[in-house]
Amino acid sequence: MLRGQMMDQPLLISSLIAHADRCHPDTEIVSRTVEGPIHRYTYADAHARSRALAQALARLGVKPGDRVGTLAWNGYRHLELYYAVSGMGAVIHTINPRLFPDQLAYIVNHAEDAYVFFDLTFAPLVEKLAPHCKGVRGWVAMTDAAHLPDIPGVKPLCHEALLAAERGDYEWPRLDEWTASGLCYTSGTTGNPKGVLYSHRSTVLHAYAASLPDVFGASARETILPVVPMFHVNAWGVPYLATMNGCKLVFPGPALDGKSLYELFEAEKVTLTAGVPTVWLGLLAHMKANALRFSTLRRAVVGGSAAPPAMIRQFDEEFGVDCQHAWGMTEMSPLGTLLTLKGKHERLPADERFALRCKQGRTIYGVEMKIVDGGGRALPHDGKAFGDLHVRGPWITSGYFKGEGGNVLRDGWFPTGDVATIDADGFMQITDRSKDVIKSGGEWISSIDLENIAVAHPAIAEAAVIGVAHPKWDERPVVVAVKKPGAEVTRAALLAFYEGKVAKWMIPDDVIFVAELPHTATGKLSKLTLREQFRDYRLPSA
Amino acid sequence: MLRGQMMDQPLLISSLIAHADRCHPDTEIVSRTVEGPIHRYTYADAHARSRALAQALARLGVKPGDRVGTLAWNGYRHLELYYAVSGMGAVIHTINPRLFPDQLAYIVNHAEDAYVFFDLTFAPLVEKLAPHCKGVRGWVAMTDAAHLPDIPGVKPLCHEALLAAERGDYEWPRLDEWTASGLCYTSGTTGNPKGVLYSHRSTVLHAYAASLPDVFGASARETILPVVPMFHVNAWGVPYLATMNGCKLVFPGPALDGKSLYELFEAEKVTLTAGVPTVWLGLLAHMKANALRFSTLRRAVVGGSAAPPAMIRQFDEEFGVDCQHAWGMTEMSPLGTLLTLKGKHERLPADERFALRCKQGRTIYGVEMKIVDGGGRALPHDGKAFGDLHVRGPWITSGYFKGEGGNVLRDGWFPTGDVATIDADGFMQITDRSKDVIKSGGEWISSIDLENIAVAHPAIAEAAVIGVAHPKWDERPVVVAVKKPGAEVTRAALLAFYEGKVAKWMIPDDVIFVAELPHTATGKLSKLTLREQFRDYRLPSA
Repeated sequence: MLRGQMMDQPLLISSLIAHADRCHPDTEIVSRTVEGPIHRYTYADAHARSRALAQALARLGVKPGDRVGTLAWNGYRHLELYYAVSGMGAVIHTINPRLFPDQLAYIVNHAEDAYVFFDLTFAPLVEKLAPHCKGVRGWVAMTDAAHLPDIPGVKPLCHEALLAAERGDYEWPRLDEWTASGLCYTSGTTGNPKGVLYSHRSTVLHAYAASLPDVFGASARETILPVVPMFHVNAWGVPYLATMNGCKLVFPGPALDGKSLYELFEAEKVTLTAGVPTVWLGLLAHMKANALRFSTLRRAVVGGSAAPPAMIRQFDEEFGVDCQHAWGMTEMSPLGTLLTLKGKHERLPADERFALRCKQGRTIYGVEMKIVDGGGRALPHDGKAFGDLHVRGPWITSGYFKGEGGNVLRDGWFPTGDVATIDADGFMQITDRSKDVIKSGGEWISSIDLENIAVAHPAIAEAAVIGVAHPKWDERPVVVAVKKPGAEVTRAALLAFYEGKVAKWMIPDDVIFVAELPHTATGKLSKLTLREQFRDYRLPSA
Repeated sequence: MLRGQMMDQPLLISSLIAHADRCHPDTEIVSRTVEGPIHRYTYADAHARSRALAQALARLGVKPGDRVGTLAWNGYRHLELYYAVSGMGAVIHTINPRLFPDQLAYIVNHAEDAYVFFDLTFAPLVEKLAPHCKGVRGWVAMTDAAHLPDIPGVKPLCHEALLAAERGDYEWPRLDEWTASGLCYTSGTTGNPKGVLYSHRSTVLHAYAASLPDVFGASARETILPVVPMFHVNAWGVPYLATMNGCKLVFPGPALDGKSLYELFEAEKVTLTAGVPTVWLGLLAHMKANALRFSTLRRAVVGGSAAPPAMIRQFDEEFGVDCQHAWGMTEMSPLGTLLTLKGKHERLPADERFALRCKQGRTIYGVEMKIVDGGGRALPHDGKAFGDLHVRGPWITSGYFKGEGGNVLRDGWFPTGDVATIDADGFMQITDRSKDVIKSGGEWISSIDLENIAVAHPAIAEAAVIGVAHPKWDERPVVVAVKKPGAEVTRAALLAFYEGKVAKWMIPDDVIFVAELPHTATGKLSKLTLREQFRDYRLPSA
């Protein structure tokens, strides 16, 4: 191999905050604090404090490769931890405080966190966790001495006291770019959470990709407020793309209600935001109730789960904000797609353009996507064929922390567990979860499509479609439905309702009416439980 | 070291054209051909033909690491060579046909080009070169059989015939990302040209950086016309960022006169362009003479040499186009800075904002810059201190091809040979060439500043300031000036003209009036020749 002669300069997370300091020293970072007041400082301050924090961590005995946990909202101290921990060669492990305490204890112990930093909100949680996490050498309260909490059985360290003890003349080490930098656990529906271990290389490449004009496209003129938590897959990369491009950052802290968010958007002249659909429901309801308008917000990136079409429309038509779908996974750092229309789409009829905007988004350069059938054969990118979505790229995981789950790749590709279509322009649309799709006579039937038809019937409140065993067809779809209070519909009438809406062979074989459907802790329909419930059910036709 | 667990997926140039094919198959590439007509096709076509071309190259016996030369304008066949040659693991060597024939022969032989592809324009040049380049196994005319030129002593191969013989079912190999991908020679002022050897990694990273919102910031809605030649440091990366983002590409071929360019800008609705100042002079003069306006052009990136302030102003005020300075070097792939103002600059008085726009640009993330004094000590980034500009980053060279010039780095940084200031926002301004700066009593004096003052005198047509030896001060500045025809000014009067314009100790020690100043082949003032001419000159004060 003839080797190119360009510098072997590693891609390092510390270079992001150093760049922001050198080129955007006076750009602001504004945080609503847990303690109460709004805090504001600059990238120059953030870099100086990150260096001091790295020094403090070293003094605490944190070594390269050690994990440092965080239980924290979006705020400036959390940002400093992002840069200090990774920058010194350790691994920042952002923990989702919304998990059950026993899951949290499992995660902290599995990660072997050396220290855990926590916001004041989580002092009661730390009290519960500490006895079960004996490996943690210290719990650090992210506050000053005046606010240091008293936690029975725990003698918390003080974030500000640690910083104050340092000179801050720390020099970022030159690391190998493949060094682990961050750790985030997925909360799968089955088994224990599994960790995804990011590297400096993957994080910097992801930041470049997230910055592309058709992805976040955030210049130094942009003010970004990430509502998506920093414990939710690195806030989708916002803390890294902001330093790369010198964007003003606004952190909402714990106040994620509509009123608090709206006030912060307006006060800080936010132009771009990102978060899950639930948060926007609260914000838009507050604004509608009070006849409020955005002065500066232009774009809202929505991910985590699909935005209801009505929300996309409401953002656009009532509030003049471009609501853009993004899709990804913890295993993908997380970005895989983002919804930006092309010039040619301007000429489409409004309903076609809107249908396009409801897809999950266009493939980001760096991520390769393919859809495959049951035999692993690639399917066409025609927007119609659907198959298991497999992804590949430099910011996609090759396996889980400590080898949990074994070898997860298929021929070098990561199977997302989603079933999707991809069109000729690279727009991807999720049609089902792989485990929910119904495999009938070698063909796949989308459970989501059949559910959408059922709930379109005026008498149906909620519906789930599952595949049940069939001797000839392998599986056949069955509707499990809840009627609206007082409404009536027969099995035959509901089945007849499918005619003309899907191909005849896709129409479910049976309808089972139930009083209620099982849901997960986060409110999602639990098809796993449902399949369990109907394990012994036999089809009338079988 | 704890290694992250993200995929080891190499950054490859072939993935750029594959991405454009998958996500932007119908986006157009429009070329004005050497043969005459306008040619248009799509990224799907370009990818298919690039794969067929890679197959043809393999059939010709081109092996990984071999160099393949090009003598070609900006056009679709040149683009195919960019992807085919690099994609297969060979090295595309873009040759500047404007060099002297003996320099060209030196370069082709030094690079050991296996094949050279050429546009019809350069058939006479190939005739001259071939006898001196015996290592070249074949000369390929970038045309079809009907236009195949007859070149005495050379039996050229035919680009289209090569393609037609292939099935095009070529699969891009998975290369190591450090594999050499491209070669470009710098034409330094002294000695032989030296080669810079790019890699897949450096090229893809440079494309990400060039795509950032405050750099080219080109989305899929953009139509880019690179006037900067593809033999001029990869057309500043445009052929790579266009596939990364799915931009429509418009290639001007050999027609770089104002009229041809204007017609192409308008016909193809170009929104973004890039080129050297000379080209824009021709274009703007043509437009002014014919009272023409741009319908779609919004931005013109100018580099290669500094744009005259009047041009920046004219683009803006007369034509509504944002003229953005870019700065870089062959050794830097080439981008180091690009001029994009920040939000806060909107509030500056117009003249201060304009002065900022005349700087070379803001540091691009990925490139680190520092200015150092004669002892190698870093100077402050305050916009005032100036020193030797050193750069570092993953797309900056670590040395020249075949080791020419030896070890060029200083402590791991590449010395650009420029003297510059950097301000607190990362805006860099070149104040001099390192070899032209005058070192007097431990202080540095910018020759360019002193020249600008001289030519501001109404009687001076042209001036050069050089340092001459001084027993006490090491060097002192001397003005070598050409008077305007019929104008008169004395030595004393010109020296007095400096008073109040620079510090007293910076005022030149002497003035030498000459009939003309020496210039290089490309029209630049040759201070090297001038210093040679005045080697024996003694200062009156010495």
